[in-house]
Amino acid sequence: MSYRVGIINVTGFAGMEAARLLWGHPQAHIASVTGRSLAGQKLGEAFPHLACYEDLTITDGIEGEVDIVFSAMPTAASAASCEPFVRKGIPVIDIAADFRLKDPAEFEKWMGQPHPAPDLLPQAVYGLPELNRAAIAASRLIANPGCYPAASILAMAPAFAAGLVESQLIVDAKSGISGAGRATGGGYSYSDVNEDVSAYKIANHNHQPEIAQELAALRKAPAPRVTFVPHLVPMTRGIHATCYAPLRAGVTDSDVQGVYRDFYRDAPFTRVVDTPPHTKHTQGNNMCLVHAAVDSRNGMLVAIGVLDNLVKGAAGQAIENMNLVLGLPQTAGLDMPAIYP
Amino acid sequence: MSYRVGIINVTGFAGMEAARLLWGHPQAHIASVTGRSLAGQKLGEAFPHLACYEDLTITDGIEGEVDIVFSAMPTAASAASCEPFVRKGIPVIDIAADFRLKDPAEFEKWMGQPHPAPDLLPQAVYGLPELNRAAIAASRLIANPGCYPAASILAMAPAFAAGLVESQLIVDAKSGISGAGRATGGGYSYSDVNEDVSAYKIANHNHQPEIAQELAALRKAPAPRVTFVPHLVPMTRGIHATCYAPLRAGVTDSDVQGVYRDFYRDAPFTRVVDTPPHTKHTQGNNMCLVHAAVDSRNGMLVAIGVLDNLVKGAAGQAIENMNLVLGLPQTAGLDMPAIYP
Amino acid sequence: MSYRVGIINVTGFAGMEAARLLWGHPQAHIASVTGRSLAGQKLGEAFPHLACYEDLTITDGIEGEVDIVFSAMPTAASAASCEPFVRKGIPVIDIAADFRLKDPAEFEKWMGQPHPAPDLLPQAVYGLPELNRAAIAASRLIANPGCYPAASILAMAPAFAAGLVESQLIVDAKSGISGAGRATGGGYSYSDVNEDVSAYKIANHNHQPEIAQELAALRKAPAPRVTFVPHLVPMTRGIHATCYAPLRAGVTDSDVQGVYRDFYRDAPFTRVVDTPPHTKHTQGNNMCLVHAAVDSRNGMLVAIGVLDNLVKGAAGQAIENMNLVLGLPQTAGLDMPAIYP
Amino acid sequence: MSYRVGIINVTGFAGMEAARLLWGHPQAHIASVTGRSLAGQKLGEAFPHLACYEDLTITDGIEGEVDIVFSAMPTAASAASCEPFVRKGIPVIDIAADFRLKDPAEFEKWMGQPHPAPDLLPQAVYGLPELNRAAIAASRLIANPGCYPAASILAMAPAFAAGLVESQLIVDAKSGISGAGRATGGGYSYSDVNEDVSAYKIANHNHQPEIAQELAALRKAPAPRVTFVPHLVPMTRGIHATCYAPLRAGVTDSDVQGVYRDFYRDAPFTRVVDTPPHTKHTQGNNMCLVHAAVDSRNGMLVAIGVLDNLVKGAAGQAIENMNLVLGLPQTAGLDMPAIYP
Repeated sequence: MSYRVGIINVTGFAGMEAARLLWGHPQAHIASVTGRSLAGQKLGEAFPHLACYEDLTITDGIEGEVDIVFSAMPTAASAASCEPFVRKGIPVIDIAADFRLKDPAEFEKWMGQPHPAPDLLPQAVYGLPELNRAAIAASRLIANPGCYPAASILAMAPAFAAGLVESQLIVDAKSGISGAGRATGGGYSYSDVNEDVSAYKIANHNHQPEIAQELAALRKAPAPRVTFVPHLVPMTRGIHATCYAPLRAGVTDSDVQGVYRDFYRDAPFTRVVDTPPHTKHTQGNNMCLVHAAVDSRNGMLVAIGVLDNLVKGAAGQAIENMNLVLGLPQTAGLDMPAIYP
Repeated sequence: MSYRVGIINVTGFAGMEAARLLWGHPQAHIASVTGRSLAGQKLGEAFPHLACYEDLTITDGIEGEVDIVFSAMPTAASAASCEPFVRKGIPVIDIAADFRLKDPAEFEKWMGQPHPAPDLLPQAVYGLPELNRAAIAASRLIANPGCYPAASILAMAPAFAAGLVESQLIVDAKSGISGAGRATGGGYSYSDVNEDVSAYKIANHNHQPEIAQELAALRKAPAPRVTFVPHLVPMTRGIHATCYAPLRAGVTDSDVQGVYRDFYRDAPFTRVVDTPPHTKHTQGNNMCLVHAAVDSRNGMLVAIGVLDNLVKGAAGQAIENMNLVLGLPQTAGLDMPAIYP
Repeated sequence: MSYRVGIINVTGFAGMEAARLLWGHPQAHIASVTGRSLAGQKLGEAFPHLACYEDLTITDGIEGEVDIVFSAMPTAASAASCEPFVRKGIPVIDIAADFRLKDPAEFEKWMGQPHPAPDLLPQAVYGLPELNRAAIAASRLIANPGCYPAASILAMAPAFAAGLVESQLIVDAKSGISGAGRATGGGYSYSDVNEDVSAYKIANHNHQPEIAQELAALRKAPAPRVTFVPHLVPMTRGIHATCYAPLRAGVTDSDVQGVYRDFYRDAPFTRVVDTPPHTKHTQGNNMCLVHAAVDSRNGMLVAIGVLDNLVKGAAGQAIENMNLVLGLPQTAGLDMPAIYP
Repeated sequence: MSYRVGIINVTGFAGMEAARLLWGHPQAHIASVTGRSLAGQKLGEAFPHLACYEDLTITDGIEGEVDIVFSAMPTAASAASCEPFVRKGIPVIDIAADFRLKDPAEFEKWMGQPHPAPDLLPQAVYGLPELNRAAIAASRLIANPGCYPAASILAMAPAFAAGLVESQLIVDAKSGISGAGRATGGGYSYSDVNEDVSAYKIANHNHQPEIAQELAALRKAPAPRVTFVPHLVPMTRGIHATCYAPLRAGVTDSDVQGVYRDFYRDAPFTRVVDTPPHTKHTQGNNMCLVHAAVDSRNGMLVAIGVLDNLVKGAAGQAIENMNLVLGLPQTAGLDMPAIYP
């Protein structure tokens, strides 16, 4: 038995990456893929690195029967693509941001437009298994986390859950360029981006409320005020989230290390490491590496999360959620080393 | 049943990459790995991207029983590592250059030292399945091709086999920096290599005779005079071999395209493509992409081969050879898309 | 006294680079710059790295009086921009390809359209001072060389001038991405281009006839048949042209070295070096480094030219030509080390 | 009249860069350079990008008379090199960290060894002209700032000087690889560093006290507690310091913008910009770009400083200090656009 997967908008980086990873999945395969601009072409011809998909045609809409759907549409357009499947009871993993914020007013505030399907919001579950494993397995509409929030939340979740820190959080995130997507204009040309670092959307990126919402839900600390500053660095894949939060009085480095290790003891894809992690150690696989350091001079927790933005930050996370929804082993199709160097 | 693989010198890039790829092999697994400088450490601790190998200890020598051995030792030191296994009848895949040149005098001329085990040379088979599939399957000592020769020979083999070209061949090859190996000195630092292209060992690289030997063995054209010039380009993985040979009178572009497609019709890992291929379309997998263009103004064949130097150019090729030697499907453990972008 | 320079289309990479270099010129300064898309903006605001030009407004056309004009318009559109100045007797340096090929039929064959101003062609001089110093100084219309031809011709000119080689020439060129220009589409995005090498326009690039024309003009060797294959490599600046030509019988390495050193003895911006040169050693300055190696096994000359495609391959060359046309020292404003690392 | 400059240890990146920049200085030139490992070679042969220095021999010690000395020795070794010149009254610009911390106990705490010349400390002036212009001009021993502190202090100085912020400061800094120096081991190889971001020395880097000391000296805010976390990103040059500090109650964005613009109104090399700056806009020149943003939701100042670590972060700053010490125009030899792309 192999589950049939449909991918809406396979032609973006997240969709392509889902196709790459699903090729090796032992219990699921792609049955249908859409992508308006390339409709009619074979997937394996449109994207030479996916040449193995020599018989799969890109179509305008999902064709035939599917057991689960991934939507890799742009945010705000995705809900409409998801909706028919949700209404039919077919599980949907939404890789866009449409169902991540529980409050439609927050969506409108950050996205600049009304939420496209507020009545579906209550049934959506935030798809980070390290926090919501059981709820994901029981849901039919999964809001796959954003790449920045995945790294940031995994870096800080143990500290918030255990009440180690105060409520002020700074997240300084560095992302590879593929996070900007495939169909990008001149601003992301090689000549402009190579040998450059720059910040953008300072404290104004729509991933900021997503981080705040999920950390607040962990409860033992006050709801955090989050200052989120993303940066572009000259590499293709990878996110490095460096998080800063004041430690509560009396919390020791030993406390921190114990809490972090306990929190992720059973997580197959988040590993706590003893030294500052390298994004490259997660290149191409579904791991998130977390490191917690204590600046004891200043009573500050410095927690780092690194991952591949297209895998644990997008398509790999989607497959992990799919596995949970379909009752498959959580690691099915995702148990692989990173590619290094 | 799962075959037990030993890797001698797992700590270089080729050895590490073999470990990466064997993790997902359905019918083989690593039983023992060596690496003098890191002996005593767990493989998964020494190399964080291989964290899945949490229980495999690096040892000084191969321990326990193994069904096949990979040697990723440096050239000239490798033969001594291979020899005991060859003598015991255990199949060996030598990733170094020790057994590639059939004439020990050629070895001495290009390597600057006598061949370390000339009596073993007659039983060695050059491990490029596109040329020697049956001989590989019947052998116990496989000389895994060099990364440059793999790309160059695959680009030119159809032309030489079909007698399309004259005997003068120029190979202008561009390599990513990982080809220089892991334990490298200052010359390969990021600051020196980034934003730079340079040639080295002009017409003096020891991969030159390997290319000449294998193309000569294809017989229908005269033994070629090969001018081989390698270049370093600022990327980690990938080889792009651009090959130039004068076409014999009367050979048309249509002839060329037909010959190339026929030659690789049944090759699972070499694909002839219609447009100039990108190294990045083979990143992390075992494919070689070949493109043949005719400069009709000048009667020149321009044939290109691209591959990932650490996979089809080293560790992936080794596993493909292992599969043939052990009677497994040729693509076992190697059937995966490239990672892109 | 400071000459007044006009730059038509300052908003492309070549125009921007001319502005960068002219800032430090002791006897010339920019008086007017054009650039349709950014007209009305200050140059220093449109391009933050040129912030020193805080008072220079980009206009639709050249305004006020100028003593010399650079055109950095796209090929085929440039002639029309140059023409009014040429007719008025104001010297023009055309950085586009409009006036490089002396035969308008060749222009039409390679550019796919009739030459836009064939009557001006006879007065145009090919602007490579190493070959045409006196003619440049006496001309009012300079065809600035293409970036690939500059590196290729400088690598091979001594050999052709001295009759060292046969008539078959292969040029395998590697270029950084800035050669594709500033206003480029998705094909040059960082995610696509990073970690990739690919060839394009194999034996079909419009720089091929330019190389052939100029080498043929050196006369002592037969007019060469040139196979030119350009490649993109993942760096921003730099061209590395590797040239292959069969040596005439009896020509020795010592002959070659002597001829090359003699040829460039008085050239301020081309230096013959003993080891394979690095593109990075010319980053940002007007040098071309040339290296000639002999593959004595095969009787082949391997000659390499490297330069910064935006300086000696475009804007720096234009200023060098300006200096000659205006009777200034050839090195004025261009005497600077490369930037390294 | 041209001042004679001596450079101790010209063979590191900072020394090489000083040589690059001094070539174009109108009122100073290099008279003597040292570098033990390459002593006896010509500077222009040892470093091909400096070929213009064809007659300058690298020696063991400074030879002949010099009017000013730069020391680019490693920290802790530099003081001994500077001392004889200081004692003779010859001005010294120390590019190492030996004279930056005013308290020798702080030096010992962070460097792990006693200060090598504590009696010279009182006469040393911290060489950041934006803060100490007059004191530099009056001094004979200048402690050139570290690359990270230069960017961080320039980003935050206006806020501290005007008392806009509370005393808790987080500096999240991203550096290109050249900051690690030239003679580096395997950890900085291209294959390891490319496509990677990682933090190091979290809250434990010896640039942390330097930042704290200089901001504290600005007085109007309490002495800050500084958490400094440096990161390596895959580029050669450039530092991007992102600084976070809580705003004092009532401080508005308009206050911030006014204070920043006023503070740098007369600074020739620090420019306040309206949008997040790019490190690449300072490539190769002596500019620091500063941007101040207010996260009004959280009452947080986010201030960014970017510069070229080898220029404003090292050699360019040294020349700027030299100009002040020698009574030359502050911008002499440093007035040039950045190189872009």
